[in-house]
Amino acid sequence: MIIDPSRESPLYVQIYEQCKRDIIEGALSVGTRLPPIRKLADDLGVARNTVETAYRQLVQEGFVSGKVGSGFVVERLNLGKMAFAITADDSFNLFNDEQRRLLSVGTPAFGACEYDFTYGNLLPGSFPAEAWRKLTADALFSIEGTQTSCYNDNLGDFLLRLNIANHLRKSRGVRCFPEQVVIQPGTQAAIQNLLQLFNPAKDKVAMEEPGYDGVRKVFEHAGFKLIPCPTHLDTEAYLDAVNHSGARLAYVTPSHQFPIGAIMPTQSRQQLLDWARVNDAFLIEDDYCHEFRYRTRAMPSLQSLDTYHRVVYAGTFSKVLSPALRMSYLILPPTLLASWRERYDGYYSAVPWLNQAVLRRLFEEGLWDKLVRKAYTRNKRRHEALRDALQRYLGDKIDIIEGGTGLHLLIGVRDGRNQETLIGQAASAGVRVYGTDRYWIAREHPLGNHLLLGFSAIAEERIAPGIATLAQAWFPEGSGCT
Amino acid sequence: MIIDPSRESPLYVQIYEQCKRDIIEGALSVGTRLPPIRKLADDLGVARNTVETAYRQLVQEGFVSGKVGSGFVVERLNLGKMAFAITADDSFNLFNDEQRRLLSVGTPAFGACEYDFTYGNLLPGSFPAEAWRKLTADALFSIEGTQTSCYNDNLGDFLLRLNIANHLRKSRGVRCFPEQVVIQPGTQAAIQNLLQLFNPAKDKVAMEEPGYDGVRKVFEHAGFKLIPCPTHLDTEAYLDAVNHSGARLAYVTPSHQFPIGAIMPTQSRQQLLDWARVNDAFLIEDDYCHEFRYRTRAMPSLQSLDTYHRVVYAGTFSKVLSPALRMSYLILPPTLLASWRERYDGYYSAVPWLNQAVLRRLFEEGLWDKLVRKAYTRNKRRHEALRDALQRYLGDKIDIIEGGTGLHLLIGVRDGRNQETLIGQAASAGVRVYGTDRYWIAREHPLGNHLLLGFSAIAEERIAPGIATLAQAWFPEGSGCT
Repeated sequence: MIIDPSRESPLYVQIYEQCKRDIIEGALSVGTRLPPIRKLADDLGVARNTVETAYRQLVQEGFVSGKVGSGFVVERLNLGKMAFAITADDSFNLFNDEQRRLLSVGTPAFGACEYDFTYGNLLPGSFPAEAWRKLTADALFSIEGTQTSCYNDNLGDFLLRLNIANHLRKSRGVRCFPEQVVIQPGTQAAIQNLLQLFNPAKDKVAMEEPGYDGVRKVFEHAGFKLIPCPTHLDTEAYLDAVNHSGARLAYVTPSHQFPIGAIMPTQSRQQLLDWARVNDAFLIEDDYCHEFRYRTRAMPSLQSLDTYHRVVYAGTFSKVLSPALRMSYLILPPTLLASWRERYDGYYSAVPWLNQAVLRRLFEEGLWDKLVRKAYTRNKRRHEALRDALQRYLGDKIDIIEGGTGLHLLIGVRDGRNQETLIGQAASAGVRVYGTDRYWIAREHPLGNHLLLGFSAIAEERIAPGIATLAQAWFPEGSGCT
Repeated sequence: MIIDPSRESPLYVQIYEQCKRDIIEGALSVGTRLPPIRKLADDLGVARNTVETAYRQLVQEGFVSGKVGSGFVVERLNLGKMAFAITADDSFNLFNDEQRRLLSVGTPAFGACEYDFTYGNLLPGSFPAEAWRKLTADALFSIEGTQTSCYNDNLGDFLLRLNIANHLRKSRGVRCFPEQVVIQPGTQAAIQNLLQLFNPAKDKVAMEEPGYDGVRKVFEHAGFKLIPCPTHLDTEAYLDAVNHSGARLAYVTPSHQFPIGAIMPTQSRQQLLDWARVNDAFLIEDDYCHEFRYRTRAMPSLQSLDTYHRVVYAGTFSKVLSPALRMSYLILPPTLLASWRERYDGYYSAVPWLNQAVLRRLFEEGLWDKLVRKAYTRNKRRHEALRDALQRYLGDKIDIIEGGTGLHLLIGVRDGRNQETLIGQAASAGVRVYGTDRYWIAREHPLGNHLLLGFSAIAEERIAPGIATLAQAWFPEGSGCT
């Protein structure tokens, strides 16, 4: 360590900065003990107090733990605790101002909020960490653990695919051989890969309007022309648009249309299958949250009715298990499976073998069914809590759109305020609600005042206070119930 | 369970088949105890011997463990042990013959072999399973474990990116901010994603000839025109071709040209950078096995010389850690990083958070450097063993091409036999060696008699016997050394 009394910055800052740099760059690794205060002070020829101040600063910023007397030890870096941007350190001047601007990450639009009705994330702590830990050890030290040394089947671990096929046969009436199941790192990637089997110059896509923007982006980026088919009217209007679309592919969410929440009747499903057969088209059935049907029994999947082999069934583990695991699957009809195999010959899977082996064990030990039941119960209660709170605090001022299923609902505020205004007013009271414009291809649409409220990432007991706060933010003159 | 004495198949087969079906479909889960022989025999009204025969068959095929007297328990399905194809069971007749043909997976070209000089896979047991187990538990139960419930940063875990940046600064002279590191599920996927920032209608790619076919497929599938630039002559010929390519992108492996093994001199690296600057082009530097340089010190990376921000640096964890983990990274220059962020806004990462968190801890605990040293020592010894064996048993009959680095070498058999003949003769003696035609864009090429021998997946002590066997297979009249 070199300190220079002639420099402008105080000696303690110089000590602090060199320690910090060494920790960030790994020269001082986790668990390393810093030199004792007395020793470093003697070595550098500074007062002990100077070193102590530097060390205290490091402790305060989370780089180091410990105290005077018992010594200081380097901690694992933790962004949550660190009080500064690492890259603010301009120890190397590689980039000009413009390049540095390009590097810097934009700050999020809102800061922390008290009540977040986000969609997609799950409640912290809901991941079965102990089971995952145990099954990871089991997989690593099993006979098949040697597969960690190999490139593996790029369609996925066969026994995981077998378990998925069996599970879907029981729970969704899906009929397929395990060979037809292809393990993928998320629905977007799965559909991106699927689109490689089609031709953007010729094949159009019948897209739900409104519909899931995450998938729409994939179609758009792949260069496919989208034909919007209305989902906010009745099923006839939707089917009519599909019939006139001239599309080769239709993306559908029949179990719970996203984001409207409608459930497609059996007869319409049959008509959709007929359309596909007659037009040599394929249906992508995104059955993303079939587990969560609260008021009636779930209907069998579109795939289960498909005797023409026209349905690509897409499923995910994000809603029950974890969105951070990045595991999903497609079930391909035989002709597409053959094209897929050919197209991806010589490609490696994007999904780690170990994660597949652990998930397979989750099925084999019967834990998956338990997780589904637990998530179902939790979500059903939150769904009711949200509905009740909305009716209680905002019942006479909003319309609620929901189909008794899924992990979110839509609300429209009747007085005509637009999304932006409503989101801003909510945010300033610490409540985060979400816009729906992004789900539409059209710039102008009839549900401009509708917002999305998810309930998968908020604790049940925080729902009512959150909605009460929201009502107060939107109608400060009193909603009649506070 | 229903048995029908009037059916053609024997009673024990009927019992066996129903048990097997129930196990495969999960109705009998792992650990379930089958009914005692005496009880089932009484219930079904058959001889005990009939039930016992069925159970023995299940044990033999690995579905069940146990023996008469102590009971039978359902085992975890294990494809290695199972003596049949699951889908041979035609319990449902969904598909016609043509569709079933499309479903069936082709049998591998060769059966098991005694000596496999494959490239890419690692030796079974080389994965640090115990460390991975421990760090998985650590990550799951740390404060950040809550990230298992969320969609995470689609560029990757920031602290993993920081560790990678620090590691590459020390080991490869790479200079970058952690923001520039993007975590990806393998090199193919990384380059596929990168290509989305370019235009296949306009941008050509200068591709190494011969070169890595896994990446070449990605360029071809994305519709980019490839300009082959020779790598088997001298560096001038390569640079000359790049200079005349009119390309916007060049894919290069300067540390160890794949598959030739050449190392690009510093001066040529500088010329390549100049070419990129002058032509507004980008270089994709695939530094896939820089850890393994056996005779001289590794040269700094192309990226470390790049003052124009023209290099995309690509790295992988497959060669040191595990090809089954599916983790790699790109380091993007600022302009491309900005385009990347925009292009992938609203996209989710394909790499699981947990795997990133574990890998980050591997760095933080100093284990990565240890793994590199261990892999280096192991590979250096195997490299020497392979060279020595080739010289001893085939020295006067082959040419060896290698640069004292990497995980493979090339050999050309001088008598002019072609690859197909040589591979076939080797295979019939139980030795697997690999062709090199796939690495060429051109159908005809000057190294038609050259084969690839990898040494990353074969034990050191098996190399010499393998090459002795190979020599005997190719030159049965005696190579003069046996």
